[in-house]
Amino acid sequence: MRDPVHGLISFEADEERIVVELLATPELQRLRRIRQLGLTCLAFPGAVHTRFSHALGAAHVMQQLILRLRKIHHELPISQRLSSECARDAIAAALLHDVGHGPLSHLFEDAVAHACPENARHHEAWTAQVLCEPGTGVNTVLGQHDPELPARVAQLIAGHHELPYLARSVSGTFDVDRCDYLLRDAHSTGVGYGDFDLAWLIRSLRFGESHDGQAPGLAIDGPKGLTAIESFILARLFMFQQVYFHKSTRAAECMIIAILRRALVLLQQGVRLAHTPSAMHALARGEQPPLGEYLDLDDHVLLETIKEWRHAEDPILKDLCQRLHTRTLFKTEELFGEAATKTGQERALALVREIAQDAGFAPDSYAHLDLATVTPYEEDRSLMVHFGRGPHRCPSEVSFVLDRVKNESLTRVRLVFPGEVRERVQQALETL
Amino acid sequence: MRDPVHGLISFEADEERIVVELLATPELQRLRRIRQLGLTCLAFPGAVHTRFSHALGAAHVMQQLILRLRKIHHELPISQRLSSECARDAIAAALLHDVGHGPLSHLFEDAVAHACPENARHHEAWTAQVLCEPGTGVNTVLGQHDPELPARVAQLIAGHHELPYLARSVSGTFDVDRCDYLLRDAHSTGVGYGDFDLAWLIRSLRFGESHDGQAPGLAIDGPKGLTAIESFILARLFMFQQVYFHKSTRAAECMIIAILRRALVLLQQGVRLAHTPSAMHALARGEQPPLGEYLDLDDHVLLETIKEWRHAEDPILKDLCQRLHTRTLFKTEELFGEAATKTGQERALALVREIAQDAGFAPDSYAHLDLATVTPYEEDRSLMVHFGRGPHRCPSEVSFVLDRVKNESLTRVRLVFPGEVRERVQQALETL
Amino acid sequence: MRDPVHGLISFEADEERIVVELLATPELQRLRRIRQLGLTCLAFPGAVHTRFSHALGAAHVMQQLILRLRKIHHELPISQRLSSECARDAIAAALLHDVGHGPLSHLFEDAVAHACPENARHHEAWTAQVLCEPGTGVNTVLGQHDPELPARVAQLIAGHHELPYLARSVSGTFDVDRCDYLLRDAHSTGVGYGDFDLAWLIRSLRFGESHDGQAPGLAIDGPKGLTAIESFILARLFMFQQVYFHKSTRAAECMIIAILRRALVLLQQGVRLAHTPSAMHALARGEQPPLGEYLDLDDHVLLETIKEWRHAEDPILKDLCQRLHTRTLFKTEELFGEAATKTGQERALALVREIAQDAGFAPDSYAHLDLATVTPYEEDRSLMVHFGRGPHRCPSEVSFVLDRVKNESLTRVRLVFPGEVRERVQQALETL
Amino acid sequence: MRDPVHGLISFEADEERIVVELLATPELQRLRRIRQLGLTCLAFPGAVHTRFSHALGAAHVMQQLILRLRKIHHELPISQRLSSECARDAIAAALLHDVGHGPLSHLFEDAVAHACPENARHHEAWTAQVLCEPGTGVNTVLGQHDPELPARVAQLIAGHHELPYLARSVSGTFDVDRCDYLLRDAHSTGVGYGDFDLAWLIRSLRFGESHDGQAPGLAIDGPKGLTAIESFILARLFMFQQVYFHKSTRAAECMIIAILRRALVLLQQGVRLAHTPSAMHALARGEQPPLGEYLDLDDHVLLETIKEWRHAEDPILKDLCQRLHTRTLFKTEELFGEAATKTGQERALALVREIAQDAGFAPDSYAHLDLATVTPYEEDRSLMVHFGRGPHRCPSEVSFVLDRVKNESLTRVRLVFPGEVRERVQQALETL
Repeated sequence: MRDPVHGLISFEADEERIVVELLATPELQRLRRIRQLGLTCLAFPGAVHTRFSHALGAAHVMQQLILRLRKIHHELPISQRLSSECARDAIAAALLHDVGHGPLSHLFEDAVAHACPENARHHEAWTAQVLCEPGTGVNTVLGQHDPELPARVAQLIAGHHELPYLARSVSGTFDVDRCDYLLRDAHSTGVGYGDFDLAWLIRSLRFGESHDGQAPGLAIDGPKGLTAIESFILARLFMFQQVYFHKSTRAAECMIIAILRRALVLLQQGVRLAHTPSAMHALARGEQPPLGEYLDLDDHVLLETIKEWRHAEDPILKDLCQRLHTRTLFKTEELFGEAATKTGQERALALVREIAQDAGFAPDSYAHLDLATVTPYEEDRSLMVHFGRGPHRCPSEVSFVLDRVKNESLTRVRLVFPGEVRERVQQALETL
Repeated sequence: MRDPVHGLISFEADEERIVVELLATPELQRLRRIRQLGLTCLAFPGAVHTRFSHALGAAHVMQQLILRLRKIHHELPISQRLSSECARDAIAAALLHDVGHGPLSHLFEDAVAHACPENARHHEAWTAQVLCEPGTGVNTVLGQHDPELPARVAQLIAGHHELPYLARSVSGTFDVDRCDYLLRDAHSTGVGYGDFDLAWLIRSLRFGESHDGQAPGLAIDGPKGLTAIESFILARLFMFQQVYFHKSTRAAECMIIAILRRALVLLQQGVRLAHTPSAMHALARGEQPPLGEYLDLDDHVLLETIKEWRHAEDPILKDLCQRLHTRTLFKTEELFGEAATKTGQERALALVREIAQDAGFAPDSYAHLDLATVTPYEEDRSLMVHFGRGPHRCPSEVSFVLDRVKNESLTRVRLVFPGEVRERVQQALETL
Repeated sequence: MRDPVHGLISFEADEERIVVELLATPELQRLRRIRQLGLTCLAFPGAVHTRFSHALGAAHVMQQLILRLRKIHHELPISQRLSSECARDAIAAALLHDVGHGPLSHLFEDAVAHACPENARHHEAWTAQVLCEPGTGVNTVLGQHDPELPARVAQLIAGHHELPYLARSVSGTFDVDRCDYLLRDAHSTGVGYGDFDLAWLIRSLRFGESHDGQAPGLAIDGPKGLTAIESFILARLFMFQQVYFHKSTRAAECMIIAILRRALVLLQQGVRLAHTPSAMHALARGEQPPLGEYLDLDDHVLLETIKEWRHAEDPILKDLCQRLHTRTLFKTEELFGEAATKTGQERALALVREIAQDAGFAPDSYAHLDLATVTPYEEDRSLMVHFGRGPHRCPSEVSFVLDRVKNESLTRVRLVFPGEVRERVQQALETL
Repeated sequence: MRDPVHGLISFEADEERIVVELLATPELQRLRRIRQLGLTCLAFPGAVHTRFSHALGAAHVMQQLILRLRKIHHELPISQRLSSECARDAIAAALLHDVGHGPLSHLFEDAVAHACPENARHHEAWTAQVLCEPGTGVNTVLGQHDPELPARVAQLIAGHHELPYLARSVSGTFDVDRCDYLLRDAHSTGVGYGDFDLAWLIRSLRFGESHDGQAPGLAIDGPKGLTAIESFILARLFMFQQVYFHKSTRAAECMIIAILRRALVLLQQGVRLAHTPSAMHALARGEQPPLGEYLDLDDHVLLETIKEWRHAEDPILKDLCQRLHTRTLFKTEELFGEAATKTGQERALALVREIAQDAGFAPDSYAHLDLATVTPYEEDRSLMVHFGRGPHRCPSEVSFVLDRVKNESLTRVRLVFPGEVRERVQQALETL
């Protein structure tokens, strides 16, 4: 198979046969209808790649990683080496790690969390359910290989495995998910900063130190791979700065959340909304939707729903959907310094709500404070650095740049509101 | 704006202001919901880029081309130079050239042409209508600049303009449409063969020879640009071989056409099909749909419709839609030599229809002959070659490789049928 | 090791250990002082890469090829599989294939062939001598592995091996030499046309058909690799058109040949030329230089010699060297049509010689006819194409474009002369 | 012209004509014989690009920068805009900024500085001399345009100009020199970390704030360019970590310095060394060599000299030259923590000198402490950041990562010694 990021992708070995079977399941095919970056394509027109290609890419990176680990696993006692079964499990985990993802990136989750917190449920939980609920295509395929496989792969996706180096490859500072999404998002957005040297990084991987006879975690060979890992971590920082925290993306996301929350409120009030997916009805009733209904949700469905809601009776829902459909995005103002502190934020939000109200916009739907935050490098000993002599060390101990950014957070605070009140908001902020 | 193919795209000059206005129209925003390559993503998972980004890209290439032409247009009499108005028209034409495109690439057109030939209508006609019908967003924007603009841009898109070099830039052997789609399709599929050196090609452009005081067409500077143009033409050949004529893509396209044809037949028979877009009803009634209904069609709508038709009563429609939705694609067998001649094709098609019938598949929907053909290099004097001394010459006169491929056609002939009868078809072909 | 073309290069397996040992020999280190493209950097400033990096690259491509062949060699009887010894031999052959190369690309060879035809000796002969002459670093390393190794590797470089698929990998239509030099020359010159998809090509390799129990040659899997091989062959054609046959490069090469020929004539006349390398003295005496003297020649030495010869007494040698040193290159006029025929060439050369003579330039040194010719695709059954059913076929039978270019030659005919007589030559050509 | 880094390079405008004239001077042609990265190619075989292509590249970047500045200079009073003369001066300065560079990167300078500190002279001083000394090719060309031009360009290269934004483009945090060398070094070494988005960076340039009616400096548009500038600065950090401070490069550089110092000592003692360039004799006599002799030095000359010195009588010089010629590089041990402090360094050096002495190696030539240090981001207000509202700010005020690295130094401390004593040095270090 051709992949725009990795070039050649193929799964031909015996232990990789499971990939071909899993790809044919409806749950994986559904990922073709979910974009990796949700509404980011409103800001970066090329960013329309799907979670399906990301899943393939992650499985491919896992293949490369396994190839590397096998080149060196003779260093380990036989019981800690990478058996064919473990390899299969790991590739399946990489392919399936997002199979329970909701539509429009994380937005659906967030909206539900806001509107009915008691029903908030992370996509990770849905993923586990897709794997373990009898009757899903994925569960059937996995079960045919080994009745324990669904549970084992679900555990691995959650980061649990008796081989720490494998667990950390699925979920850690440097895992196959991040490896693929950074490269893929960079390729599709045209933002070069997400690039890093994956081949070199994988080549410089080693096993970490063993303690008490336990299998080791992952480490990198310092002289070879330190800059590669630095550049990987900075690539992630830069993608957050440029893409994931982009003001238009964040504004569009606020709008989607406002739309979904408004719709849930209306449904809870008993309003009838045509073309509403069943899963939304369940959520509005305070129930978790059955898996089938949940999986019926995808980007197409939700965007078509929003298109239909342009004809809803509720003026707020109608207007928000119309704006989104024609890409009349909310505007943003970033808060700095004093205004960005907790107190400043509260005052600024109060202000923009007041202005919205004055202008005839319901503040709950039209005036938002958007807080975007990430810690580009959390040091957690999941990836150590090895130099010729001496013990394995944390990256920050030996890296000029990681030492200076570790555990520090990057935060963007923004007010989000309709373009109609932009000037008034700007004036108000100046006098703040 | 960031573009994964061209890097930076921006429209800041006065004559480019129109782009920003046009981008805000619903007709251009609709292109976000139409993939450039239709179902090709079933074979190349990355190929999900939209006509929206292609439209932007084409306008960007036109900008670059105008920049180049202006560097050299002092050679021409003032009346033949590239005025600010002409530049604006050309950029608008590049941006709008596909604005009337139907969903799923050319498939919708093809299906209509099959099912109701009297209503067959090329997307070019729809594009002209979007430009010229009062009330569309595009018509309004164009008309605000100049009441003659809608008609003039429509003419230019059709390849007519008093400046031949401009007409050929919009529609010719080397036009901005091809320039962008080759690069973009190559980038998204991961097939490297579509790459060529656009910057160098544009840099080696010159004006052609003038005849009888007429404005000239386009030419390239031979020593600098001949290999660039050869490589451009071969890139197109290679993309046809590898992507546009890929067997899985063609199989999926056969399925879509079979689905749409079946649906039209059912509608004509008065069968009620839930969730059918209005435009389809009009077509079934033998009427051209109104522009608004036509524009309501996009990839999302059609794929959602197909998803719904999985629950149709008609067993054929139901089955075809189910297969497509779960990516259970038809299989293909390519015909070579004798079997690929007109007679051979007829015999082979008769055979596969018979086999399908035997196996309980309605031949009209399940047994197809797929003929894919293209002439990679049609020589038409729209792009001449200039060497230091002597007259302008046709590329084939001076090119080793173009001389050898000019006006020759590449054809792929394939039988297309359900996987269930594959073995029987293969056996039958061997005894043919 | 980092390589600008292939990224990561490393030789870590047991059978690759020999590479590290060979790299330390003075004969391989000498290749650091020989540029891959000789004087091409006068036309493409970036083209200064060395035969040393090409040798490394070729060995790397061989590694990749071996990896691929081993994935599929279980199809063959055990005796025809790729043993560890064969792999080692092949990698050594790839690394060493140019080890006897003369300075300044093929120019030194050509000059000697002109000036003392009886001493003409291809670099292939020198390569064999470096391998087989006791006492060279290369011979010692090879001999330590196996006393037969020097002879065996020399045979393999010459294209002889009991495993045809291996022989053809070292020397054939698609061999590791071409694979590396096309990519490397493209990368360094900045000419994109040399690019092709090496990974994909290697992935689509298969074994050819066996005849009479003999080991097979190479083939490619048609559906996957045909376009890749077409694009490889066209890449080569384009590199010839754009780089290897570039007029400035060819002019500079004419000058070098004129310089070396003049120097040999002077030496033969007993003239003393300071700073002349010993090997030149031997050649002038009509003797083959000893290997050590030959290997003392490299680009640095020859260019330094030319720098010194600017102070020679002979006015011709002095002037030619001065022109080359300051990059005052000869000019060229290409001959087309009638003028490019055998008779036309003779008349044109006579003409330019006369003009040179008139202007006070010795025709033997200042007036040249330069004939550059290549057959981009010679079909020789060294690489066949395999489709699912039916026998292996020649590429031209199944390729649209190769069918049309096979066994055809591309020729450039040019007059080469000092800039001072350019106008007169142009005028004379017009009246020809 | 084709460039492997920037693609197309051409100088066609009137104000760029001077480039073509300057390229023909012997001083610029000399840069073809000086590699940009000296001996780095011993560690990165591809790194053989020359200062000639870097000079071209820097001039090209300056062109791009001027294009950008002219798009926005209408904001400035006419007297502060970029006149045609200023543009010409700036492009000439970019092209010539390294014209006085010594051979083998900065090594020749360093060696002279060690051996005869009173004669230490930076290449900047030589550059100024090439420009201003009557009779050089460069001086002649510049003078023909304007008698004041040589001095003016020399001033500009030194960072002095009445338009601060122009001065900073030639010499500053973000100048055309750095822009080109980072990309070029990354391209040739195959180390991806040097890449950054030059086009985007240039597009986000603006003028800084004016103070007291003075012309402004440079600034970048924050929302657009901040990540670009961060990535530029980190690219430089990474190139230092991976390439410029690479242990093999540094070891080879120690050897060159040891060789040159030894040779100067011998010459000062009256020893006759065959093939020694005249400039070395002058330096040994305590004199500054005349410009002509200095310019006769280039990489070829120096490496040929070292080749010859393998036959010197002095056993130290002989041995060092032999080692370098056959790439038998010194080994290194990096010092960390306590051992890397000033005191630790002294003790470690004493130790390695003692070990060398014991093993029969003259410590002055064979035992070295190599201190490599750089401040990746020195904040100096030469490039400010502009956000929509509010004053221009220093990058570190608004950048997550630059705030954390500003004015901090990266240092590598290494012992350098012959491989023969490696084990003893390692053992000694462990007991330190």
